[in-house]
Amino acid sequence: MAIDSEHSRAWRSAPVGIVGLGLIGGSIALDLRRHGLRVQALVHRAETAERARQRGLADLVSTDAAVLSDCALVVLALPLDRLLEPDPALVAAIPEQAVLTDVGSVKQSVLEVWQRLHGRFVASHPMAGTAQAGVDAGVEGLFSGRTWVATPNAQTELGALACVQDLAVLLGARWLCCPAADHDRAVALISHLPVLVSAALLQTADRAAAMADGGSSGTLGSLVRALASSGFADTTRVGGGNPMLGTLMARSNRTAVQLALAAYRQALGAMEEQLSAGDWAALEADLRQAQSLRPEFVSTDRSAG
Amino acid sequence: MAIDSEHSRAWRSAPVGIVGLGLIGGSIALDLRRHGLRVQALVHRAETAERARQRGLADLVSTDAAVLSDCALVVLALPLDRLLEPDPALVAAIPEQAVLTDVGSVKQSVLEVWQRLHGRFVASHPMAGTAQAGVDAGVEGLFSGRTWVATPNAQTELGALACVQDLAVLLGARWLCCPAADHDRAVALISHLPVLVSAALLQTADRAAAMADGGSSGTLGSLVRALASSGFADTTRVGGGNPMLGTLMARSNRTAVQLALAAYRQALGAMEEQLSAGDWAALEADLRQAQSLRPEFVSTDRSAG
Repeated sequence: MAIDSEHSRAWRSAPVGIVGLGLIGGSIALDLRRHGLRVQALVHRAETAERARQRGLADLVSTDAAVLSDCALVVLALPLDRLLEPDPALVAAIPEQAVLTDVGSVKQSVLEVWQRLHGRFVASHPMAGTAQAGVDAGVEGLFSGRTWVATPNAQTELGALACVQDLAVLLGARWLCCPAADHDRAVALISHLPVLVSAALLQTADRAAAMADGGSSGTLGSLVRALASSGFADTTRVGGGNPMLGTLMARSNRTAVQLALAAYRQALGAMEEQLSAGDWAALEADLRQAQSLRPEFVSTDRSAG
Repeated sequence: MAIDSEHSRAWRSAPVGIVGLGLIGGSIALDLRRHGLRVQALVHRAETAERARQRGLADLVSTDAAVLSDCALVVLALPLDRLLEPDPALVAAIPEQAVLTDVGSVKQSVLEVWQRLHGRFVASHPMAGTAQAGVDAGVEGLFSGRTWVATPNAQTELGALACVQDLAVLLGARWLCCPAADHDRAVALISHLPVLVSAALLQTADRAAAMADGGSSGTLGSLVRALASSGFADTTRVGGGNPMLGTLMARSNRTAVQLALAAYRQALGAMEEQLSAGDWAALEADLRQAQSLRPEFVSTDRSAG
């Protein structure tokens, strides 16, 4: 890409609009202010605006979409459902010349919706944790060392793409571009599937114990609760997360999640057959492969964090 | 139980025999020495004995089973396979009057084997992490606040049981008795099933990506590895563990693990149907239930640890 850096940095001299001040929006806002940029934020509720002002998340916080009028870059830091069915007043308030990006965890559907609505839209997804939510969740440095994925297509304007890249790099993220369909298939495997797999584990521990007890609060039910330790805590962490968010992800990335589930059913089914057949060599080979795969996905430092 | 405490503490005035100085055996040995008790350890290899001496794990370390001859309490801190097919020389060396216990993570099969071999055997399982292994893994205070399960049956001698309870409580553990079959069904659900579920997730992320790439090292394969973050790291931690240990657990607790897998297949299958049907309300209800279940299994402090 032959975008000169002066051009890609032009957005820095105008206010940046942030729509939504949850974990991602709030963290972007804090980092931008730390870099001396002016942040103007649009939020839904008056109480959120008040709390955001108390926290100093932005230079200007409003519930009126007109707050975006002089922004050269606008970041839609909204939940997936509000990205996919956007408020017409919001759409109308985004300046035609502004570069627009989002932070949604599913990209193909978001790209389809917003590319139609705004010429300078760039679909993007900063890969940052979602354990915390709300106006108190935003922190400085959230994106440092994390991957920030963009999913441009043939219609994406290169100047707009370079601007979003400059934002990501300014915030310390590693920039990565790929097709939206690849992004969605990848996150189905490493983010959305684990939520379902993990939630099913909690349900199973509860239901199978209750069934063995012949009721709902017997001996085995107490025992599984008393004996669950750090391994169970790790494996069930994402399954115990926000149910609305999990449902939105599955809903917005349905086909890819269905394919991931089918592949998963096959892998687990093979282990079930190994147990039935008493084929311990095959089971150990499978577990050995899993052990050798993990470091390819999880670097030691990230694993420890 | 009407066991007087003086009687149950008599073991403290004689040497304690520890067979195996891995994470569990080494940690028990360190704690006992800290309490001023004399520890005499039996290990398999001369190099292990040498390293154990360097670390000061025991007062006496030997590869000769005669080291157990004057012990009033002997702890079998061996891997499951060596518990289930014990060395005849070891069995012969355990003093007939000694209280004997083990630390295996499966209890019914261990109880069957050892109750036949030794009159004063108590099957037990201290629930402590297994991320580290070997003679360098043992640490002080490993059992503090953790649950130590014993699985007595009608043949278990109450005096021997009280002695093992005194050991567990001395080391700061929470004592819990239940039937061996209940223990095995509980750990199948909260410990053995998670290993398989977690390993299958690693395999799926690898295989489904490779299949989509039509090869073994294409775009999606790189992408899943680049995008995997803390959620994937958490969910796959136990699946990336020791494959021999995972296989031994499944093998020694086969029926309970098979039942757990069948129940799990049903729970995940229900979610798969919700996705096919687009029944988002039902999926959200399932995820909401998982969210509300997790705190029953994982206390906040343990989760953070």
